Amino acid sequence: MSDLILYTPSGVLASTPPLRRAAKRLGALGFNVSIDEAATAKHQRFAGDDETRLAALHRVAKAAPDVALATRGGYGLTRLLDQLNWKQLGRSVEKGTRWVGLSDLTALHLGLLAHTQQVSWAGPLACDDFGRTEEEGGVDDITRDCFLEAMDGSLEAVGFRTEAGFDGLGVRGTLWGGNLAVLCSLLGTPHFPRIKGGLLFLEDVNEHPYRVERMLLQLQQAGVLDAQKAVILGQFTGWKKSPLDRGYSLKTCVEALRARCKVPVLTGLPFGHVPTKVCLPVGAKTELLVEGRDVFVAWGHVGHGHDHPHHEHDDQHGHDHDQHDHGHHDHKH
Amino acid sequence: MSDLILYTPSGVLASTPPLRRAAKRLGALGFNVSIDEAATAKHQRFAGDDETRLAALHRVAKAAPDVALATRGGYGLTRLLDQLNWKQLGRSVEKGTRWVGLSDLTALHLGLLAHTQQVSWAGPLACDDFGRTEEEGGVDDITRDCFLEAMDGSLEAVGFRTEAGFDGLGVRGTLWGGNLAVLCSLLGTPHFPRIKGGLLFLEDVNEHPYRVERMLLQLQQAGVLDAQKAVILGQFTGWKKSPLDRGYSLKTCVEALRARCKVPVLTGLPFGHVPTKVCLPVGAKTELLVEGRDVFVAWGHVGHGHDHPHHEHDDQHGHDHDQHDHGHHDHKH
Repeated sequence: MSDLILYTPSGVLASTPPLRRAAKRLGALGFNVSIDEAATAKHQRFAGDDETRLAALHRVAKAAPDVALATRGGYGLTRLLDQLNWKQLGRSVEKGTRWVGLSDLTALHLGLLAHTQQVSWAGPLACDDFGRTEEEGGVDDITRDCFLEAMDGSLEAVGFRTEAGFDGLGVRGTLWGGNLAVLCSLLGTPHFPRIKGGLLFLEDVNEHPYRVERMLLQLQQAGVLDAQKAVILGQFTGWKKSPLDRGYSLKTCVEALRARCKVPVLTGLPFGHVPTKVCLPVGAKTELLVEGRDVFVAWGHVGHGHDHPHHEHDDQHGHDHDQHDHGHHDHKH
Repeated sequence: MSDLILYTPSGVLASTPPLRRAAKRLGALGFNVSIDEAATAKHQRFAGDDETRLAALHRVAKAAPDVALATRGGYGLTRLLDQLNWKQLGRSVEKGTRWVGLSDLTALHLGLLAHTQQVSWAGPLACDDFGRTEEEGGVDDITRDCFLEAMDGSLEAVGFRTEAGFDGLGVRGTLWGGNLAVLCSLLGTPHFPRIKGGLLFLEDVNEHPYRVERMLLQLQQAGVLDAQKAVILGQFTGWKKSPLDRGYSLKTCVEALRARCKVPVLTGLPFGHVPTKVCLPVGAKTELLVEGRDVFVAWGHVGHGHDHPHHEHDDQHGHDHDQHDHGHHDHKH
């Protein structure tokens, strides 16, 4: 049975029922769930003051559970980046911990990659995904299954449908990315990983397409995008049209990017602030293949600490990888 | 009589009456006003497509009027930065053109500084300030007077009240800055000026304090803030409180910055998306002095092209500067 710790590194939990539901649901899914002592701490808009949240992160790292799942995102990790003991966090990954989350957690994933080259997981958040009531639709089936396979080590690829025009594309590189605004907020700082030849995935919420475009063009002008092998856009949701748009849309924004960017820009990744989201190993060597409009993002087996010996003696993972039929999700949108 | 061209480099003008009012009012103030042929062009949310707006900027630069005043901000300059002929824009400044604006225009000011080391002016926008109806309050007196003095070369300092705790501070450096989000969107790109020992001023609109904080901490973590002699915060307006704030405010954000930043962080600069705004020469050698709670930001005479010979033979500017009583505005908030 896998140990799973729920902790809150960023924004305050407005109420506890979603946390209780998430803990119960994750328990029913087979995890040995514990809740960090500061998970419900409150300081202004934060889940406790900076010292409290730093201590929580270091406490989880020291405990090195199989899964460290953030309860929610919000804002708060930026304040901690210069004080975090990245080596300690990196050691927890070596011991087998999978750090999972999205949104503000992007700062943790990318900082971990920049400072320790260790892999962490872009994926669900406890309250947002596993804390939903049945009336709210409960946890999405694909999100749940993908998470379970990612956490037991069997998820080796994800798939989705993209626009026409990329048939035959095949590239390899380090998979990295996350929330666009959070990723951009690390540019120029020591916490921004310098990945060359990577596969960069991005999503965002509550950002008007003109703001998404401004951020994407910044990454392009900063030389980040053209240093990648591919850019993979997830879901950009929660923004409101303006009377000033006059036909300007997310599509325009993607077109503007493609007109300036040498690398292929794919859309359709089922990841972001949406119920249906895959898990992606941030920092893993990954292959991207397109057949027609079907995209396969495959990393094979991602070794985490105690998985290593297992991996070395077990051919089955290799077979699974070759067949592309295990842990592969085809999400058509 | 000074030639003044109104042009639209970024967002589309939703209607023309504000432009007509601005032209009329600026004419009454003594300018020989002309309106660029593409000032009212429309392409989606932009004032014409990228080629149209690029051509407008280059046309204004070639005409080299005394004043090049943007009609409004919005979003759009980011798309043009890599294509702009910065040398041509720089030559217009050498010929005497004062480029004026704020918000999205920050990208123009900072790009000009990064590529040509030429001075431009953070100040009003034609429609937002000079295009207001009498019912809307007309143009603010201080904004108008400050603009007139900045444009005729007589404005050599501005003043304002800040919080207690900075009495006796006196520093010199290059004055630079503008809109925080636009400035941050240039980080890591060739359009971001690398100013050491400067005086950095910042403002923003419609950005919640947590987002302002995230941007300020990015600048701090990127080493930009601690490389300055002072940070001067203008007005941060238009944001809405959230039930999740629980006491978190703009004040908290400033405190968080001060706790991490070695340089003095002053507040109270009358600049931003507010009716009352001073003019500031972006790129000028400037002195900041604090007496009690009174802040003086003084640059003396900023030479623009044809002012140089005048400046060399005229002692009076030196006297004005020494006396600090000419072109000095004390805006108490």
